[in-house]
Order: sequence, then structure tokens, then C-alpha cells
Amino acid sequence: MTKIQSGSGKTGPEKKGKVYGIGLGPGDPELMTLKAARLIREADVIAYPALAGGASFARAIAANFITPNTREIVMDVPMTVARGPAQAAYDQGAIEISKTLNAGQNVVVLCEGDPFFYGSFMYLFARLNATFDVEVVPGVTSVTACAAVASLPLVARNEVMTVLPAPLEDAALTEKLASSDTLVLMKLGRHFPRVRALIEAAGLTENSVYIERATGADEVVKPLKDAPDVAPYFSMILIVKGADPWL
Amino acid sequence: MTKIQSGSGKTGPEKKGKVYGIGLGPGDPELMTLKAARLIREADVIAYPALAGGASFARAIAANFITPNTREIVMDVPMTVARGPAQAAYDQGAIEISKTLNAGQNVVVLCEGDPFFYGSFMYLFARLNATFDVEVVPGVTSVTACAAVASLPLVARNEVMTVLPAPLEDAALTEKLASSDTLVLMKLGRHFPRVRALIEAAGLTENSVYIERATGADEVVKPLKDAPDVAPYFSMILIVKGADPWL
Repeated sequence: MTKIQSGSGKTGPEKKGKVYGIGLGPGDPELMTLKAARLIREADVIAYPALAGGASFARAIAANFITPNTREIVMDVPMTVARGPAQAAYDQGAIEISKTLNAGQNVVVLCEGDPFFYGSFMYLFARLNATFDVEVVPGVTSVTACAAVASLPLVARNEVMTVLPAPLEDAALTEKLASSDTLVLMKLGRHFPRVRALIEAAGLTENSVYIERATGADEVVKPLKDAPDVAPYFSMILIVKGADPWL
Repeated sequence: MTKIQSGSGKTGPEKKGKVYGIGLGPGDPELMTLKAARLIREADVIAYPALAGGASFARAIAANFITPNTREIVMDVPMTVARGPAQAAYDQGAIEISKTLNAGQNVVVLCEGDPFFYGSFMYLFARLNATFDVEVVPGVTSVTACAAVASLPLVARNEVMTVLPAPLEDAALTEKLASSDTLVLMKLGRHFPRVRALIEAAGLTENSVYIERATGADEVVKPLKDAPDVAPYFSMILIVKGADPWL
């Protein structure tokens, strides 16, 4: 990780810019918060990750609020499970953002969902927070967006909810599937067939709903038993065990 | 639970109104979504719970978007842990909302946080969903709002997060405190001293942050060791075990 140099630091006498890490919500631009929309409209400089050479989902959500004179810092993140190349992209992004902040301008970083919930903003936060003022604006997560589009209440009263990334190993997933009232399985992608088999083995298929790209134009919502064979990264399974616990 | 009678039902020929259950976010009105703000502005009829004879937190968040000619259905929910009286209030609210829907008007139900995440909207949903069209608009939850104001990234990569209501029994809490990378303890209130002792016994006090009324004007954010002795219902403890897992 690259150390960011700053003449004055957080408490120094010079006027430094501030970083805003803003959650954009799950995909529908209207599920952005009023604060996120205002900060994007007012921004002199925005920054966001893009898949190397490709589109940025974050920028697409925010597009209608970006004004023509806004400068854009794009972090090209390579598509690989190796950590090094992606972290190098955030190193480079943090350096460019730091220059802007040291020149006294604010930088609004666009983040899908919520910045602190499995968000890549955390990599920038780790690099910038010691040196600059950082404000995080929370966003609607894909978890409650999926529940909304599936018409599926998640948790009530004293029920317990656990969020499980699908890449976890079989034993860990199976143990945790048994331990909570509501389960949220994220980051399905290539792990989908394996996770689906574990859910079936746990006898939970009937309690499971599959959702792709919640609130997006190409949204898919199906009972897990009717789900397609291949799941994209932006898909999720919600498992709600409670039998009409909402009364 | 009261069964709602309707002449035509969801698929009938008559034009019935639609129910919107909208999440208002954690407290700062600017953390409402654009969609929630629009639906409130456009509403002919809104509905919300209020503590019997007292104020409605939901209405307070939405206040600046409610127009003068909007009709307001208030559900007076008694302050008691007994289920009966509260459920009677939702029975009554559902009847009044149904009359409005049957007359062809939409009803926008105001919900703190997110409607399907420990939200009382679920009680109305159970009463109305079989008969009327219901759309849920997700909102920012107190979970990510607390993380934002505490500058505390919640989960990254393959980390597991569990949400625990504080009223759970000691054994269940202690077991679950050990089982996830990130823990969210909700609904502290009178359970706070007990939960705090369990966290201390688990050796997790140093990883714990206490937050009251995140994003509200009277917000409190402190390391758990410096927290006050008494916690309100709208308070939370975040426990993040990961040691700099953000790189």
C-alpha cells in the first residue's frame, strides 16, 4: 500500500479538500439518497472504479447528476482474483485523488450500494483516511433492495440475519446456513451451483429466492428452484426461514 | 389478525389504490432516497405509526416533503412489549388504509430505516399484501448509517456479518459473538448493560463502537468502553474483528 504524503495533514493550517465516499444504492438511480445526488451535482471532481477498459456501473447509476464541467478520475481495476493488480489501481487512484485534495478541491467517490458494505471504497479509505478528512454517505444496500423486489420481509422482532459471501468453503457455509433465521448469500457468480447444492442439502430450497440485478432494468426475481443455471456476480439468494413471523 | 375484505382483489376489474411502503433512512432527511421523497410529495394519503399520544419519528424525517393537502392516517401504537395491543393498532390501521385503497387512492406508508429490516411495516404488509398491490421502496438502514458515522468499514471480501437483536438470551448472543467477523447489535435499550458485559467477557470491547441515533442531530459515537451507562432503543454496537482487512 502506498503511503500518501501531505504537507499539512488533517489538522494542518492549509485548506485541503475533503473526500466524500458516497453510496449510490443498488442500481435504480432513483434509489440514490438526496445527499448523494446533491454531492454529485455540486462536485468539481468525481472518482470511480471501472473494469479495465470497460464501463463503470457506479458512473452509470450517477450519470444524470454529473454536470458537464466535472472532472472525472477513473480507476481502471483489472478483472482478476489476484489482489496485487487491483490494489495497484487503488494506489494509483489514491495518488491522483490526493493531488486534487492537496490543491484544495473536494473529491466525490462514487460507490455502488453502500461504501462500507463490501465496497471497493474501503481500499481508498484505507489509503486516505489518515491524511485527509473523509465523509462516508451511506446508501441503500443490495440486501434490502433484493428483499423489496422479492416482496420478502427479511427480519422481524428478535430474528438473526447473517450475510454470507458465496466464495466461503462448504463447511463454513453449511454451518452458517443452519445458524440464523435469515441468510443473505452474496457474490454468487461461479460459486452459484455449489451454493445451490448446499442449500438443497440443508433442506432450504423452498425458503430461498434468487435475485439478479435488483432494481435494475434487467432485474430477475425467481424462487431458487426456478433460477437459471448461471448466475452473474451481481446476484443474491435470500433465505427466510420464519413461517409468517410478521404478526 | 383482521382479514381485509375487498370486492375485487388484486386482479379484479376495478381500479384499486396501491400501497407504497417506503424506507426513510436512519434519521437525516437528506438520507431519504429520491424515490421516497417523490412519493411523499405526490401522495394524497400517507400513513405512519406513532407512539400512542406522542410523536412519530417517521413523520419527523419526512416532514419537509409532506404537502398541506395530504391526508394523514396515524396508527397509535401503544408502548408495551405485549403483542396484542400493538397488533390491534395495525389491524385498525389496515382497515383504514383498505378503505382508502378501495376508494381508488394510493397510500404511502412512512417507515424509519428500511421497511423489511425490523420494520413495523411488515405488520401492515402481512395484512394487505394478499388483497392489494404493495410496492416496497428500500431505504438506508441504521446498520450502514452507523458504520458511516463511526468511520468503520463493516465487511470486505469474504467476511461474514451477523445482525443480532440484543433481547436474545445470553447463550445465543455469546455463541454468535464468536461466529462472525462483524457483529451488529440492535435494539439495545434496557438490554445494554447485559450485552456490554457479554462483549467484555468475549474479549471484544476493544473492537466495539457504540452509536446512538446515527445521522440525527443528537447523534453519539463512542468507543464502547467510553459509552454512557444507559442506552436508548435507537442505539447500536458495531463489532469489527478484522485487523485492517481493507487492503
